Amino acid sequence: MTAVELQAFLLRDFPQVAGDFRIERSDATGLCLRLQVAERHLRPGGTVSGPAMFGLVDVAMYLAILARIGPVALAVTTNCSVDFMRKPQAGRDLLAEARILKLGRSLAVGDVLVFSEGGADPVARAGLTYAIPPKLDVAR
Amino acid sequence: MTAVELQAFLLRDFPQVAGDFRIERSDATGLCLRLQVAERHLRPGGTVSGPAMFGLVDVAMYLAILARIGPVALAVTTNCSVDFMRKPQAGRDLLAEARILKLGRSLAVGDVLVFSEGGADPVARAGLTYAIPPKLDVAR
Amino acid sequence: MTAVELQAFLLRDFPQVAGDFRIERSDATGLCLRLQVAERHLRPGGTVSGPAMFGLVDVAMYLAILARIGPVALAVTTNCSVDFMRKPQAGRDLLAEARILKLGRSLAVGDVLVFSEGGADPVARAGLTYAIPPKLDVAR
Amino acid sequence: MTAVELQAFLLRDFPQVAGDFRIERSDATGLCLRLQVAERHLRPGGTVSGPAMFGLVDVAMYLAILARIGPVALAVTTNCSVDFMRKPQAGRDLLAEARILKLGRSLAVGDVLVFSEGGADPVARAGLTYAIPPKLDVAR
Repeated sequence: MTAVELQAFLLRDFPQVAGDFRIERSDATGLCLRLQVAERHLRPGGTVSGPAMFGLVDVAMYLAILARIGPVALAVTTNCSVDFMRKPQAGRDLLAEARILKLGRSLAVGDVLVFSEGGADPVARAGLTYAIPPKLDVAR
Repeated sequence: MTAVELQAFLLRDFPQVAGDFRIERSDATGLCLRLQVAERHLRPGGTVSGPAMFGLVDVAMYLAILARIGPVALAVTTNCSVDFMRKPQAGRDLLAEARILKLGRSLAVGDVLVFSEGGADPVARAGLTYAIPPKLDVAR
Repeated sequence: MTAVELQAFLLRDFPQVAGDFRIERSDATGLCLRLQVAERHLRPGGTVSGPAMFGLVDVAMYLAILARIGPVALAVTTNCSVDFMRKPQAGRDLLAEARILKLGRSLAVGDVLVFSEGGADPVARAGLTYAIPPKLDVAR
Repeated sequence: MTAVELQAFLLRDFPQVAGDFRIERSDATGLCLRLQVAERHLRPGGTVSGPAMFGLVDVAMYLAILARIGPVALAVTTNCSVDFMRKPQAGRDLLAEARILKLGRSLAVGDVLVFSEGGADPVARAGLTYAIPPKLDVAR
């Protein structure tokens, strides 16, 4: 799936969150997803909340998998280990760089680095595992 | 801090999310936090979203730490490893059982089990580490 | 499988490490495995090495799974997240308390607490996921 | 510290394991550590054991930190989350590519990819956190 197809998929299948995210890039090296930071993602002090960052890495990995195997709405996260390393910069979007490390028949594994836009040092990293359902429901 | 004090702290310092949560119990064995599941926590199909579950375990551990060391608004999550094991039951609140395993000077470590209310099998488990700031800001 | 059967399985299938471990208990609540700490498990200063602790939690979970599903030599660890919380006490064995949280068709998830013998506070905790091969090779 | 200094440090402070490892590269991008696979690292079937892989990622991250901050023998692993993705190739050494993502005053965070020598796909990945003692013991 291309970036345009992924964005359309997100809008159709996850309308509640689709407006938060924009796919910046999707190619052989992985996928870059932008969290368009808004008031609802913030904690007191203006920092992006943990759940908002979790949502970002989770959706980034999900879309990186779909980019490779097609629209499988039923792939589910089984494990996510996140390190929160730095406070995101106030007033900046977040960019998540996701890459697939393994794409097996039943499990996909990858990792994600999150940056404040324009920042050189990652604010968070995550390793994620997705279970892929045995029958791919591609005929949606 | 007692359950009542913790609830008041949550309301004052995290007004955006305080309404989602209710402290069911806080004692020497740990803390039980309820996520009052609402439309905004759901994904298509009626299951609770990953970020909502992440928020639940994160807040449960945070409050379990505060119950022990007092209102330290600046404790921050440094690591969270979550296993998503079962789909939460539709139309049920989630209950998170948090316990502290280590409360050091600079790091606190604990784990959390999440259940659908009335369910015997956990839907998720998480291990979390919090960094505790060197100077405790207790004079709030 | 009972504790005696598990010990025999370990000796037959993992002769290199079987001598390190003794199954203290195996019942419906989980499994307790002892690491009989010897010189080869130590780091300078007399503390148990990280790999030795990793081996302990990994074998404890593996045996806890086998206790439930029988001798499946091919179950493999897919994820392990360990928190090292305290230095083990010198000259003491380590005891690992493993419990199964989910036993699905293809994945098993559990966690482990590790204690120095006689100590009240855990020295480490771990969450582990095992992939269970689709065909159980029970006819060994 | 250079690769040569790190190898000398390993030999002096960790003589039990120094012979297992060879530092292949240490530069601004990170560190590459070789596990010289021997009989004692293997499980039945000829695959490298989980504890041996854990030891490899743990030592690789430790040395990557020392390369940046000097010989601090007291830095300790606080968290390690490993994904085991593929079976290592029989009869091949393992190469661990470690990079530092955060080097704070009290915590260092990084990740490691492990490859069978000559293999393109990673056999394992890990995220690790090290606690750095408040006073750096550099006058060794």
